[in-house]
Amino acid sequence: MAKSEQDSTHVVIVGGGFAGLNAAKVLGKNSSLRITLVDRRNHHLFQPLLYQVATAGLSPAEIASPIRSVLAGYKNTEVFMGEVTGVDLKSRKVVIEGSPPLSYDYLVLACGANHSYFGHEDWENFAPGLKTLEQATEIRRRVLLAFEQAEKESNPEKKKELLTFIVVGAGPTGVELAGAISEISRYSLERDFRNIDPSRTRVILIEAGPRILASFSPELSKRAARDLEKLGVQIWTSSRVTHVGSDGVQLGNEGLRAATVVWAAGVQPSTLGKSLGVPLDRVGRVIVQKDLSIAGHPEVFVLGDQACFESEEKALPGLAPVAIQQGRHAALNIVKTVVGKPRDDFKYLDKGQLATIGRKLAVLQFGKFQMGGFLAWLTWLFVHIFYLIGFKNRVFVFLQWTWSYFTFRRGARLIMDKDWRHKD
Amino acid sequence: MAKSEQDSTHVVIVGGGFAGLNAAKVLGKNSSLRITLVDRRNHHLFQPLLYQVATAGLSPAEIASPIRSVLAGYKNTEVFMGEVTGVDLKSRKVVIEGSPPLSYDYLVLACGANHSYFGHEDWENFAPGLKTLEQATEIRRRVLLAFEQAEKESNPEKKKELLTFIVVGAGPTGVELAGAISEISRYSLERDFRNIDPSRTRVILIEAGPRILASFSPELSKRAARDLEKLGVQIWTSSRVTHVGSDGVQLGNEGLRAATVVWAAGVQPSTLGKSLGVPLDRVGRVIVQKDLSIAGHPEVFVLGDQACFESEEKALPGLAPVAIQQGRHAALNIVKTVVGKPRDDFKYLDKGQLATIGRKLAVLQFGKFQMGGFLAWLTWLFVHIFYLIGFKNRVFVFLQWTWSYFTFRRGARLIMDKDWRHKD
Repeated sequence: MAKSEQDSTHVVIVGGGFAGLNAAKVLGKNSSLRITLVDRRNHHLFQPLLYQVATAGLSPAEIASPIRSVLAGYKNTEVFMGEVTGVDLKSRKVVIEGSPPLSYDYLVLACGANHSYFGHEDWENFAPGLKTLEQATEIRRRVLLAFEQAEKESNPEKKKELLTFIVVGAGPTGVELAGAISEISRYSLERDFRNIDPSRTRVILIEAGPRILASFSPELSKRAARDLEKLGVQIWTSSRVTHVGSDGVQLGNEGLRAATVVWAAGVQPSTLGKSLGVPLDRVGRVIVQKDLSIAGHPEVFVLGDQACFESEEKALPGLAPVAIQQGRHAALNIVKTVVGKPRDDFKYLDKGQLATIGRKLAVLQFGKFQMGGFLAWLTWLFVHIFYLIGFKNRVFVFLQWTWSYFTFRRGARLIMDKDWRHKD
Repeated sequence: MAKSEQDSTHVVIVGGGFAGLNAAKVLGKNSSLRITLVDRRNHHLFQPLLYQVATAGLSPAEIASPIRSVLAGYKNTEVFMGEVTGVDLKSRKVVIEGSPPLSYDYLVLACGANHSYFGHEDWENFAPGLKTLEQATEIRRRVLLAFEQAEKESNPEKKKELLTFIVVGAGPTGVELAGAISEISRYSLERDFRNIDPSRTRVILIEAGPRILASFSPELSKRAARDLEKLGVQIWTSSRVTHVGSDGVQLGNEGLRAATVVWAAGVQPSTLGKSLGVPLDRVGRVIVQKDLSIAGHPEVFVLGDQACFESEEKALPGLAPVAIQQGRHAALNIVKTVVGKPRDDFKYLDKGQLATIGRKLAVLQFGKFQMGGFLAWLTWLFVHIFYLIGFKNRVFVFLQWTWSYFTFRRGARLIMDKDWRHKD
């Protein structure tokens, strides 16, 4: 990596999600800077559509772009595929597994978040979360395999278990997953099976809080619940999962048997934040200053799901628009500092919230304005197409959706093995 | 599975490849029959385009269709996802892992073939073959990862090793893989990397025989070699690999260091054939009669890559048209037998051979007619689009190719981890 421009200011960005990628795009325009973006993966992932990969609607490559390609036009920018294991704030170095440490003048941390199992990490094997493409294809494998196994199962108890899908956590991801799984069974698989009635599938959405989509208004939350129930989803609110095993979940003294459990509850930020030795919030996010840097280290910025930015006494939620705006803002603050100008405070411009429930159904909230149904769904559709990175992805996702809309089919009903080695 | 039509003639098909699927489509039209197709996978795979998944041109779902959906219109047909472990010819039962055995009146075996490592099965870890989607995505992972690692490698020896790609076996698959990898490095990745010159990639195609594409005429074989060399592929004929390890391959007393080795040599049929106790040919294929059934068991048919059918003293090659025609023919022979008519002998209608080398380059041989270059490539393109199963796949593959053709990019440059569990 060491180039002749050793004297130019070096910005290291960790993470190629919404925050990191948008920071890189702003910084890349300043030829006086040298930028290195480090990510453990080769691709930027459009997380809002991940549930569609998990439910066989889209293929992984349709919602992912190689970070390297996205940033290829910025000649001052390098992309480094590697695992960051630590940050040395004193010597201003990023520690990377298997590679020499990377020195920085400015550091942007945007490592995102994972699902939290609230101390029960062993539950993950029985209930995958949905943060990566690997997890999405694993969930897809489990969901489709459950239908295949139900088709050949003669024991009615086991068949029922195979046709029970539990989604834990009723935030947008949980709602989207539950709605999509219910739709698959009602519309997409009906004519393909002989020995099961896919419409008898039980999809149970479990939420510890008193209502689903807690970040939306109570009215929208009620509307979404009604829409989900029409699709056949059973909603259990105020229900806390106390155990997850290979045969289902336990909720206190109640037990639910299910072959497929998906985890969409709780979020915990990347553990890299902990190693900084700066104040964290309750869930472990790094508390950042008004300019998005951390206290005592104006050269270090923490963004997106990994950061806790308090706005009007409330921490900003882990949404794509927050990450995008923070990425751009942190980059502008770095540029300002380099040219000797004062930094600006970050202000979040509310872009509203959207959650889709199913075909023609979504909820939308924008400030005081709120909407449900078909129009909200159309808005959801176009917003997601618009924000997808890459012209090709936009066109292909649009075509996939058009095809699915008219045929009621899913485009990627593929069960792939975990092991690639040949059998037989 | 046990239905009320217990008395109707039951045909069991093992394998949902070209042969099995085409047999099922013919049999499905006869409502007096009851058909069960068993496959260990949920999808039919369009193998001729598998190398495009391995080289990031297409996504897995674009060349795969759920077998269940393809056959959904045939109400007398059931699809059973399961692993067949044996056949009991005497009691006319198929043994399936974890399920009760399946009785048949007629049996169609079309289990295909795998690559053969000539007794060195341990080489597979270092040199995956290309028969399944899992293997294709594993090869894609290795190829793309090698470029990523080369980008950050400062040791020139190691960098060279990372940028060396060896393809063993110069049949159509090997030629297609070598051409595509060379193209990726020359056209697709050039602008994305800073510290490597992807055009300095070495792609070495190793063939034990005296020439590449041995099933084609010597002239076409020469033409293909010239075209490949223009793309930067180095061809080593009359070279036998004697060892494969983590750091490359050994050819007698010569050694080649390479981070990525792909195996496209030798083919061995499914081992299920062996368990039948009937005569096999040299490579292990089941020798079939003129009507495609096996000697002494007119109720059992073996088709496609798993079968050895001698035509004019030569065994038919393992090509899709052979499998398709055999599938249909065996099905017709079953129908004839059921209604008391005599069976017909199978005659292969030569559909010619095609192999693509790269952008605008292919070779085509049809009887005495042969052709290379752009027109052969166009033919290759339309034949493959035409034979793809499913309208949607055809449209999407066509669009992907159009996009790639004009942008020189690959649509699925995705490195996915082998483990889905979350890190950090």
